[in-house]
Amino acid sequence: MADPVIVDAMGGDHGPAETVGGAVTARREHGVPVVLVGRAGEIRGELARHGALGEIDVVHAERIVPMSERGAAAAASADSSMRVGCELVGQGAASAFVSAGSTGAVVSCAIRGIGRAPGVLRPALAIALPSVTGGASVLIDAGATSDPTPEMIAQFALLGASYAQLVLGVTDPSVGLLSIGAEPGKGNRLTRRAEELLPGLPFRFHGNVEGHDVLAGTVDVIVTDGFTGNVVLKNVEGSVRAALTLVAEAGIAAPEALREVARRYDPETHGGAALLGLGGTVVVAHGSSRAPTIARACVVARDLADGGVVTRVRSHLAVESA
Amino acid sequence: MADPVIVDAMGGDHGPAETVGGAVTARREHGVPVVLVGRAGEIRGELARHGALGEIDVVHAERIVPMSERGAAAAASADSSMRVGCELVGQGAASAFVSAGSTGAVVSCAIRGIGRAPGVLRPALAIALPSVTGGASVLIDAGATSDPTPEMIAQFALLGASYAQLVLGVTDPSVGLLSIGAEPGKGNRLTRRAEELLPGLPFRFHGNVEGHDVLAGTVDVIVTDGFTGNVVLKNVEGSVRAALTLVAEAGIAAPEALREVARRYDPETHGGAALLGLGGTVVVAHGSSRAPTIARACVVARDLADGGVVTRVRSHLAVESA
Repeated sequence: MADPVIVDAMGGDHGPAETVGGAVTARREHGVPVVLVGRAGEIRGELARHGALGEIDVVHAERIVPMSERGAAAAASADSSMRVGCELVGQGAASAFVSAGSTGAVVSCAIRGIGRAPGVLRPALAIALPSVTGGASVLIDAGATSDPTPEMIAQFALLGASYAQLVLGVTDPSVGLLSIGAEPGKGNRLTRRAEELLPGLPFRFHGNVEGHDVLAGTVDVIVTDGFTGNVVLKNVEGSVRAALTLVAEAGIAAPEALREVARRYDPETHGGAALLGLGGTVVVAHGSSRAPTIARACVVARDLADGGVVTRVRSHLAVESA
Repeated sequence: MADPVIVDAMGGDHGPAETVGGAVTARREHGVPVVLVGRAGEIRGELARHGALGEIDVVHAERIVPMSERGAAAAASADSSMRVGCELVGQGAASAFVSAGSTGAVVSCAIRGIGRAPGVLRPALAIALPSVTGGASVLIDAGATSDPTPEMIAQFALLGASYAQLVLGVTDPSVGLLSIGAEPGKGNRLTRRAEELLPGLPFRFHGNVEGHDVLAGTVDVIVTDGFTGNVVLKNVEGSVRAALTLVAEAGIAAPEALREVARRYDPETHGGAALLGLGGTVVVAHGSSRAPTIARACVVARDLADGGVVTRVRSHLAVESA
């Protein structure tokens, strides 16, 4: 049997009432081996409700990380479901960790609790942002590694392309390097060096893309450093919110009607985030996730782990010594 | 008499039909000494229409830089109104240059045609972005210097604070450092170093701000490197456009009603951009500017030049050797 996927039973807005049902569905309908971590009493109560007591293992962890808690604080407390779950992956007892908790807290716990995968220089956070064209573009790194080298950017691009294939189902993903001009050579020192490494890698390198391309569907994967990526991610959220506020204040649309557009770009609800490049895969589900979304996150985690995202990067580690 | 402000007569969507009237207004109503540069015949025809022949000097330049032309291409042609105007400032014959041409082209021509001001390490582009709260925040550097040192960031902050005072009329501007977490110490190597320099400077240092603060009115000045600033500027534009497209497609508001919101964040129409830190001030007016806006840009240019933006930076050059 494959290594299990650990599910943070306490994460998200609904806690065990939805996460346990999601884990049960992942196991029964998709054959994902799962383990639940969190307050054992509450979890067993929910398992009983689904007639799944004894079917899914439970690991007790007392503390619940609040959605508002900062990453560093979350990572510092050893007895939370997030930290305990990540430690299980770090110890090799599981292949992946799934949580509907806050992205920042999950990333901090994962970096602390799970080591780097052999050959991978640094982890990167991949987030699928919906495009106006109806598809999605993967933004990587959205905030895990703030000062990468050009070689790390090349690895992030490989991780992002694998994510686009395995999660978004794009067969031949295009990758764009986020910069400040579409022409070759435009950018800063980091992007100019990265631009030389990317054409040699196994994906369609589109060249440079710019800030206005992020939501335009120009490419399948937008690769950048974790500083710029995180600023952009939060700027997308703030800019969309500002535009909708101005529309609402102008009285040309009702706030309720605008809420669905706002939700698409809310940092807690956009379509799936994965921390790639560690000793196990970590998937962050929507904070508002119900059981079916948790089940889907477990499938994504299993697929990312089984799909050899890290193996693909390792087979191109030539970039490391370029 | 003070050094004149050079006005690019050929810049913008309307050319001499509006720029010449703007220059006449700047001179007659605001006492700004102006010189017009561009196709002398066309300019004199417009001056005659305003009864201002002989009142304002004209310098001939044959070429018009199209709005779509890239910065590097624009800067390479020596006979354009933009290049000739910037050279006049560079030679010390004028204090400032005003153009309603494309921002990228003006910046490239200005960097090429005007030298750095003594003591200023690198120029920075300041742009006032409208906030949802009704005011505006100055984003600096929006794309002039892509790999600044921490000391340059400190100078950009001083330039931005002076811009907020002189142009936006903020008496005691607050400055935020764009980063990836509000807590001190969050960010990349550059922001962590810059964060140490900013508290000692003569403005209210707010601390770190994040991507969602850019349009929220959190601070009067958002300081960042020119790479991040340019990505953010274009991302604001693209994200606002994406949100409005989704609103229009959802059928909850008519596209025409949304156009005014879109215009606020269009890169060619947002409220004023200035390239600061060179041997003369450069102000980029809206591409769609009519005469009153051109006149206002001339006043801003004169005020920035007279207001001692560069002098203030120079008096704090201690940051250079920090």
